[in-house]
Amino acid sequence: MTTPTPYRYEQLADMIVGMVENGTLEPGARVPSVRAVSEQHRISISTALQAYRLLEERGVLIARPQSGFYIAPARSGALALPSTARARMKPSTVSISGAVAGLLEHASNASLVPLGCAVPDYQLLQSKRLDLALARAARQDGARYNVYCEPRGEASLRREIAKRAMRVGHTLAPDDVQITGGCTEALTLALSAVAKRGDTIAIESPTYFGLLHTLEVLGLKAFELPTDPTRGVDPGALARLLEAEPVAACVFSSTFNNPLGSAMTDANKRALLALLARHAVPLIEDDVYGDIYFGRERPTPFIALDGGANTIYCSSFSKSLAPGYRIGWIAAGAYSRQVMERKLAFSLCGPVLPQVALAEFLSTGAYDAHLRRIRRVFEANLMQLARTVEAAFPAETRLSRPAGGFVLWLELPRGFDSRALFDRALDKGICFAPGDVFSASRRFRNCLRLSAGHAWNGRVEDGVRRLGRLAKAMLAA
Amino acid sequence: MTTPTPYRYEQLADMIVGMVENGTLEPGARVPSVRAVSEQHRISISTALQAYRLLEERGVLIARPQSGFYIAPARSGALALPSTARARMKPSTVSISGAVAGLLEHASNASLVPLGCAVPDYQLLQSKRLDLALARAARQDGARYNVYCEPRGEASLRREIAKRAMRVGHTLAPDDVQITGGCTEALTLALSAVAKRGDTIAIESPTYFGLLHTLEVLGLKAFELPTDPTRGVDPGALARLLEAEPVAACVFSSTFNNPLGSAMTDANKRALLALLARHAVPLIEDDVYGDIYFGRERPTPFIALDGGANTIYCSSFSKSLAPGYRIGWIAAGAYSRQVMERKLAFSLCGPVLPQVALAEFLSTGAYDAHLRRIRRVFEANLMQLARTVEAAFPAETRLSRPAGGFVLWLELPRGFDSRALFDRALDKGICFAPGDVFSASRRFRNCLRLSAGHAWNGRVEDGVRRLGRLAKAMLAA
Repeated sequence: MTTPTPYRYEQLADMIVGMVENGTLEPGARVPSVRAVSEQHRISISTALQAYRLLEERGVLIARPQSGFYIAPARSGALALPSTARARMKPSTVSISGAVAGLLEHASNASLVPLGCAVPDYQLLQSKRLDLALARAARQDGARYNVYCEPRGEASLRREIAKRAMRVGHTLAPDDVQITGGCTEALTLALSAVAKRGDTIAIESPTYFGLLHTLEVLGLKAFELPTDPTRGVDPGALARLLEAEPVAACVFSSTFNNPLGSAMTDANKRALLALLARHAVPLIEDDVYGDIYFGRERPTPFIALDGGANTIYCSSFSKSLAPGYRIGWIAAGAYSRQVMERKLAFSLCGPVLPQVALAEFLSTGAYDAHLRRIRRVFEANLMQLARTVEAAFPAETRLSRPAGGFVLWLELPRGFDSRALFDRALDKGICFAPGDVFSASRRFRNCLRLSAGHAWNGRVEDGVRRLGRLAKAMLAA
Repeated sequence: MTTPTPYRYEQLADMIVGMVENGTLEPGARVPSVRAVSEQHRISISTALQAYRLLEERGVLIARPQSGFYIAPARSGALALPSTARARMKPSTVSISGAVAGLLEHASNASLVPLGCAVPDYQLLQSKRLDLALARAARQDGARYNVYCEPRGEASLRREIAKRAMRVGHTLAPDDVQITGGCTEALTLALSAVAKRGDTIAIESPTYFGLLHTLEVLGLKAFELPTDPTRGVDPGALARLLEAEPVAACVFSSTFNNPLGSAMTDANKRALLALLARHAVPLIEDDVYGDIYFGRERPTPFIALDGGANTIYCSSFSKSLAPGYRIGWIAAGAYSRQVMERKLAFSLCGPVLPQVALAEFLSTGAYDAHLRRIRRVFEANLMQLARTVEAAFPAETRLSRPAGGFVLWLELPRGFDSRALFDRALDKGICFAPGDVFSASRRFRNCLRLSAGHAWNGRVEDGVRRLGRLAKAMLAA
């Protein structure tokens, strides 16, 4: 199997990205209209529109009503995108827990400039309405909810989640949904349902260190697939892996993966799903960032593209609304029984009142208004962070350009040591996530992740500037 | 190693139990004073008192202030105690999930007479004060608690739990405590920290089916140790096992194990701990029922007897206060780091506001008043249930005599099929737990467990009577 040929809209989109990167199209410039570009490139209007929408989703273009499309003003210095990691030849035994514990210890230290943790700041989340729903449920109905709920979770919450699934193009019944303790427990249940100790799991690279930690504790090996900062996982690399050796499952982000923020096209998602179906390898998808998109439409999760035939969908409310409530969910399709049995065996069921409160909050429609606000907040934060990085970091720095979520991935020249930068930054009261915790094989030592989950203010901006100066000094030395 | 010789106070206690069982001492009878019995048996007053206290703890004697000790009036027909299972020769691969799921499906069906689930009824628990603490915390501080708390759990709750540990004779610092999603998650974390797939775990037999389910999903084998309905696990049987084959860990109840309600003496607990220390086998203790004692003093958990050197202590608030809050904890001693890493990898951390509310509730001292009330409620319930069983079940029925908790274990003559009884009882709208779900090797098919966790009323009493008649009819057929 070879890498699929890009669609024409993807070719057009890539061409425009190239023109931005080489300076032909400057930030703020108006791009030709959809009609004009369709004539110039002899493509249909819908293909041209598809390209523009993709670029909008990736944060390259901005649509202005009644006016047309413009190059996003986010970037002043227009740093290049990070490179894609080369393919590795074999799975890695994961041993990340020490590094993760070390990072988390600092990441929760409120005295440091908070660029380390991919957790939204409570001051941005404004959870008042949800908290009042919890207060009301506890006061009025606390006694009668002082029971073990069904292992699958409160029926009212499962119903609300199933209703929302329709918006991403997938139909779920309440009984298809299993409530979990955040997306972390969802991934734990999914992995333990489909794989056993020693099995290989294919993952994105770089990937979220929490996933690596879960793989380690479950005794699973990680096969790291090259992941492009905008396009996501390379279907060709996955095809070669599946031909070469047994893989128990894949864990991929639906969109805006942590730390790259890639947005895989639906076409590539379909290609991956077809490949996996042919090899009968289940896909565990992690969609915690899917609701935090900056473009016009919510990206489509894998489950909506294969109807859940081979997909185990995991998500939560932790990135968008309520990290403190620890409520996630899983739609495990063919693996529902195994997942429910594991939930029962590992933790029986979740606390009832937070589920009741969240169901109440969702049923009022308040979540959609909340999401509209929080998306704009994160988009603005990320833009501020990117501008400051461009101004303060070495010119050779490569920078991701996510169209959703709230983290940036920085790649410095080969040989740069982000661990040494981490230690120096801590001394100066600044925390970030060094690159090597995002890899089972400790790659990406020249990279780092910065979070824009906190309110943008002078202290944060100053921290980013100082971090950039430290990086410049290290690079010059 | 041979079975340890019983202490003199245990010999005296056994003698008195024998006199109750053969009818010499009738319910309500006053037993000789401590002074008189010490003279009769040429033992010290403190030894005699120790025997009486043990019998009080086991529910055989009742102390009346200024008056002396009396045979507990609980039993009218004085059914014999259940027998102790014979030792098994080898560990069993566990396959219980189907049976557990089948039972739970019915156990949560509110239209059935609720004798199936060992969960306290919310109407008995009266959690109003705790619920109001949650409502207050959510209303006043919801926003700022909308964060991931430390993986170990909210510091204020860990502090309150550490303070309470002193009452059972053990000293814990807040950082020795890890908050979990109920005792189920505590046991999962403990087992996964000390054992790997294929290892053998020594357990009580019969034991709580949830533990069997966790062993199954973690791929652990169960070695079932004979467990006496009053004395608990037989140290001699454990000694023989440890000589014979590798055991990764033991999981024992501290006291009032589910389903037998045994109360192991401190001497036997010390003997077990010495044995385990000699073989370097960790003990995971489950103390969820320890606060629900009917005697004068709280039974001593293992951790207080070995200072936690070789003990991983697990407990929760689910049986005594708040099943709906899903808050348990673990004091893992030497395994603290492994347990915390697993918590992080499996579920990151627990929801914050329920922990804050519980800490507030504990800090007011309200829990002690609550426990005093709920102990009397469960004791009265259990007495009513025992009386009704004695009146309605076949005379050959053997019946446990727990001095804490809220379940009874019934043993019917060999050949009796409690699965068939289960099916017939469901037809009549009655749920209970058939005996074979309490064993990895599907023993105890002639046994059943009845829960007294619900308010005692005419419907429940009538259900027990009808169940007894069904059992009589089956036995006669």
